[in-house]
Amino acid sequence: MSGLLDSVEGPHDVKRLDAEQLPELASEIRDLLVDCCSRFGGHLGPNLGVVELTIAVHRVFDSPRDPVIWDTGHQAYVHKLLTGRLAGFGALKQEGGLSGYPSQAESEHDFVENSHASTALSYADGLAKAFKLRGERERTAVAIIGDGALTGGMAWEALNNIAGVKDLPVVIVVNDNGRSYSPTIGGLASHLSKLRVTRRYEDFLDYVKDKIGNVPVVYDALHGFKKGVKDILAPQIMFEDLGLKYIGPVDGHDEQAMEAALRTARDFRGPVIVHALTQKGRGYSPAENHDEDQFHSPGAFDRATGAEKPKGRIWTDVFSEELVRLGKDREDIVAITAAMLHPTGLAAFADAFPERVYDVGIAEQHALTSAAGLALGGLHPVVAVYATFLNRAFDQLLMDVALHRLPVTVVLDRAGVTGDDGASHNGMWDLSILQVVPGLRIAVPRDGERLTELLGEAVAVTDGPTVLRFPKGPVAESVEAVGKLGEMDVLRAATGEPDVLLVGVGPMAQSCLEAATLLDAQGITTTVVDPRWVKPLDEALALAARAHRLVAVVEDNGRVGGVGDAVARLLRDADVDVPVRTFGIPQEFLDHAKRAAILGRIGLTGQDLARQITEAVARRSQQVETPPARR
Amino acid sequence: MSGLLDSVEGPHDVKRLDAEQLPELASEIRDLLVDCCSRFGGHLGPNLGVVELTIAVHRVFDSPRDPVIWDTGHQAYVHKLLTGRLAGFGALKQEGGLSGYPSQAESEHDFVENSHASTALSYADGLAKAFKLRGERERTAVAIIGDGALTGGMAWEALNNIAGVKDLPVVIVVNDNGRSYSPTIGGLASHLSKLRVTRRYEDFLDYVKDKIGNVPVVYDALHGFKKGVKDILAPQIMFEDLGLKYIGPVDGHDEQAMEAALRTARDFRGPVIVHALTQKGRGYSPAENHDEDQFHSPGAFDRATGAEKPKGRIWTDVFSEELVRLGKDREDIVAITAAMLHPTGLAAFADAFPERVYDVGIAEQHALTSAAGLALGGLHPVVAVYATFLNRAFDQLLMDVALHRLPVTVVLDRAGVTGDDGASHNGMWDLSILQVVPGLRIAVPRDGERLTELLGEAVAVTDGPTVLRFPKGPVAESVEAVGKLGEMDVLRAATGEPDVLLVGVGPMAQSCLEAATLLDAQGITTTVVDPRWVKPLDEALALAARAHRLVAVVEDNGRVGGVGDAVARLLRDADVDVPVRTFGIPQEFLDHAKRAAILGRIGLTGQDLARQITEAVARRSQQVETPPARR
Repeated sequence: MSGLLDSVEGPHDVKRLDAEQLPELASEIRDLLVDCCSRFGGHLGPNLGVVELTIAVHRVFDSPRDPVIWDTGHQAYVHKLLTGRLAGFGALKQEGGLSGYPSQAESEHDFVENSHASTALSYADGLAKAFKLRGERERTAVAIIGDGALTGGMAWEALNNIAGVKDLPVVIVVNDNGRSYSPTIGGLASHLSKLRVTRRYEDFLDYVKDKIGNVPVVYDALHGFKKGVKDILAPQIMFEDLGLKYIGPVDGHDEQAMEAALRTARDFRGPVIVHALTQKGRGYSPAENHDEDQFHSPGAFDRATGAEKPKGRIWTDVFSEELVRLGKDREDIVAITAAMLHPTGLAAFADAFPERVYDVGIAEQHALTSAAGLALGGLHPVVAVYATFLNRAFDQLLMDVALHRLPVTVVLDRAGVTGDDGASHNGMWDLSILQVVPGLRIAVPRDGERLTELLGEAVAVTDGPTVLRFPKGPVAESVEAVGKLGEMDVLRAATGEPDVLLVGVGPMAQSCLEAATLLDAQGITTTVVDPRWVKPLDEALALAARAHRLVAVVEDNGRVGGVGDAVARLLRDADVDVPVRTFGIPQEFLDHAKRAAILGRIGLTGQDLARQITEAVARRSQQVETPPARR
Repeated sequence: MSGLLDSVEGPHDVKRLDAEQLPELASEIRDLLVDCCSRFGGHLGPNLGVVELTIAVHRVFDSPRDPVIWDTGHQAYVHKLLTGRLAGFGALKQEGGLSGYPSQAESEHDFVENSHASTALSYADGLAKAFKLRGERERTAVAIIGDGALTGGMAWEALNNIAGVKDLPVVIVVNDNGRSYSPTIGGLASHLSKLRVTRRYEDFLDYVKDKIGNVPVVYDALHGFKKGVKDILAPQIMFEDLGLKYIGPVDGHDEQAMEAALRTARDFRGPVIVHALTQKGRGYSPAENHDEDQFHSPGAFDRATGAEKPKGRIWTDVFSEELVRLGKDREDIVAITAAMLHPTGLAAFADAFPERVYDVGIAEQHALTSAAGLALGGLHPVVAVYATFLNRAFDQLLMDVALHRLPVTVVLDRAGVTGDDGASHNGMWDLSILQVVPGLRIAVPRDGERLTELLGEAVAVTDGPTVLRFPKGPVAESVEAVGKLGEMDVLRAATGEPDVLLVGVGPMAQSCLEAATLLDAQGITTTVVDPRWVKPLDEALALAARAHRLVAVVEDNGRVGGVGDAVARLLRDADVDVPVRTFGIPQEFLDHAKRAAILGRIGLTGQDLARQITEAVARRSQQVETPPARR
């Protein structure tokens, strides 16, 4: 690495550069982005789209005095490069290396670590209110939000609030690439990019420039020629209806135009939207030409061709194929995604049954309640979503779906430890919070065969919702049952008088089997069961527990409130006071690393489990027995 | 009761009436609403505002073929009266009587029981998609939504989706009374009712009628004279920007005008908004003239004067006063409400510090993330919200507040059993789902003194969020501690060798003390502690448990995943295998009744607890002891 980027140690260095040097800086940045994403994988497409935009932001605003909030955080690579973290790109997303998202620990320029979408405007609203109340008159809150994230309800809640306060120092940069994960859906999208539908990107920009020139259209200057460019300026009307000033549209790859727009916005000292048109994947042709998602977040790839390394068969593939198969027989099955058609494996279903799939935008709340409506209307919706994003729709699953006992199947991909996507992407919450939902059934498959089988059972349920959850990555090796215990699969039957009952939730069954082999070698006889359905738990578990001296539950979910706690409660309620020990993810936000590395670090491998259970058994046998109640 | 209303057994009877009879019908309905709400309390103001609107809906549409979805359900009294439930109003909201919300069990005309706001459009979207897919060409989904509920993000998510489908048979009636709970907040509100700011209601309607006549303004006719009535028609521009057709504004108390608008909308066979202007409390002068909220939801009152019966001192009052006191010393404390300034007790804080309170609309998600922004900006936000509505912002509390370890205090009113507001208002989820949030502290005061004390402790925390929760109704009698155990209050110290350790969460401490007296009388020696902070639990609890033969935990929260499970986990993790029994709300949706009646029904009174614990102790002593692990 050499050149301009090497000389940039912070935003002051970006400001110091001459305007003529900026294309070279942008070019160096793109080169580096492609290089490091080709090696480690990463959010290449979004970041290639914000190179000039980010340079302009750091030339116009004074970070961290002016906080810059990225919605979502995956578009912050360029921001990281311009705030002194060039060196860290040698280990992007690697354990101990630079996070793929903003990180307070990395830099004072990073404010928001969460990477769930549609939040930036709310942070900016709060920050700007604080500046106002504390009399910090020089500060401006800057939020950069994609057109996709604008489809999320909380972005609208924030706009509605920001628009209500005339002198709130907020600059909202709408990064409009017309495709968040995939082409943006809904009325807003067709509105924001009406012209995109009929013209190609370049034509569109030419048209804009031709009509309004390179200088950004400024709110004051607008009224005179609103009529003539009405089609382009439609968003202006909508946002100004809400009471928000609007500048744009601006070519987001014209750094000087972006600077001019941002300066005007900054100096307005009230809420302003700057509407920037950008191109996802800009400057790297395999990304620009990638039909599906412009290299939204590829794994490692060949730099010359853009060819991704083959991933092998993943859990998502099994779901994807089985849903299509089920859809052939069951015309009532419809599918819903929240802007994740490809990542959740629904694309195959959409190809087979285009009328029966709904992409609702980044709108998990609506996804669940619309599913409730579809079910009320006689259909069986399958909502496919990443586990961590279901948190957004907890209330809707509880009050809209479950309260009405509606047959909706929710399929949670990326459940459990996901690893290198950082703290807010781990799917470690669902098995806990979903326990409270009355009438909800939850299935956790241990392998591909069980995924197929349990998905079939889930869509056959007619009197309430079901959830099916599986992790990120390659599908686990098949493990056949050696027997049944009620509805549970017995994976290893202890011979003789058994010591430990190991309950392995989903893919943790494999680790439990490994642990059982090690335990048996030490003379601790171990039974292993996979409950398959973890809510409600099979009552047979209480009976089985009675025949053992210790019950251990292992799950790829937060330890607090998960299946472990549910097993313990089942036993208590049945007056079975056999000691229980529970193993899962420690209840904290995890640093990024590979899934396997994290599972090792938190003690969920077979070897770790065997050691911990051996110790628990040893401690237990040393203990003085609890005396019985006196009467 | 006599007259027209008696003759209405269903929507067909409403359709049968002559137009001239409808004012009399409306008058009878208002009379009945005032009468029954004066006796039982209820959502009087909202229902007085939708009398003509509801009549018109049932004359134009064919329920239940055309599902009518009320957002929120508390505006469905008139709908109930017109769908054969007149008799039930003799026991409105009483145990075994008519629910205050729609209920599938009551009528085929009720589809949606949940009464959390902003959901109706999503249900309608799903229903209409189902009609379309199943070829049910005659059916229309009708959603009635208030202007307040439109400030909720998921309403926008739904609009964005509905607008994307040209032939989706959805009619959205915006019931715009300009005040949901209190005057609606934000850019949208000032937009929807720009003229209200300068003109009184009657003047406004006169103006509308003068300009556009009694006939509703129809989408096709609009373009010609848009310019002339631009100020009135601003909403039309906004909604049409999204691709939604718009009819209005219509006088919502002019039944014939409403019918005409609804017929046009119905026959359009695509998504249409009908914008109805209504007056909350219409026709009952104490409600019309009620400054605070037009009798949004009064308790029983004197019909002649509108004077409510005094409520006595409630938990909310204690919070309200203490927050003002704290605010005097602490200039960094700011308060946030989601359209509930008065019900959450923040009005006093707003009076004392008008610059330091933010009403964000019915937008819990934004409330929490805006609070995160305020905290990032150096302030200490106190977010006051009903416990059940926090479910809407779970993800934001987790990922936006807790992930960044921000000092935000969330105050949950109406926690635990609320009773007659029905299943979706019970605050029985928070102590469970919040357990999973890393770094969050949770306090549960048992009485007013502890509320004061714990609120002070909560706002003193600087390194993460806190939650404080208390129930609906009169504040509990004070219970002084007789000692301390770590940070916990000992309320009753067992003498001699104790049998049972009773852990009473918040107000349940009182029931535990009653139970302890009964248990002691039977020779079961009982210690009672109140942990005050239930997350994290004091480790001293494990030590204390070791000295007892049984631990029982009692909480006014769902049994699943709550404090009981947390205590059991704490003991397990400390290798303390003393049997634990947990008591709380059964994990199901509760039927409406008074709080006290429900607590009795679910076994949480002192007497019930004593009986259940006696039985548990007896069963325990009969059991063969679990043998120790062999090694």
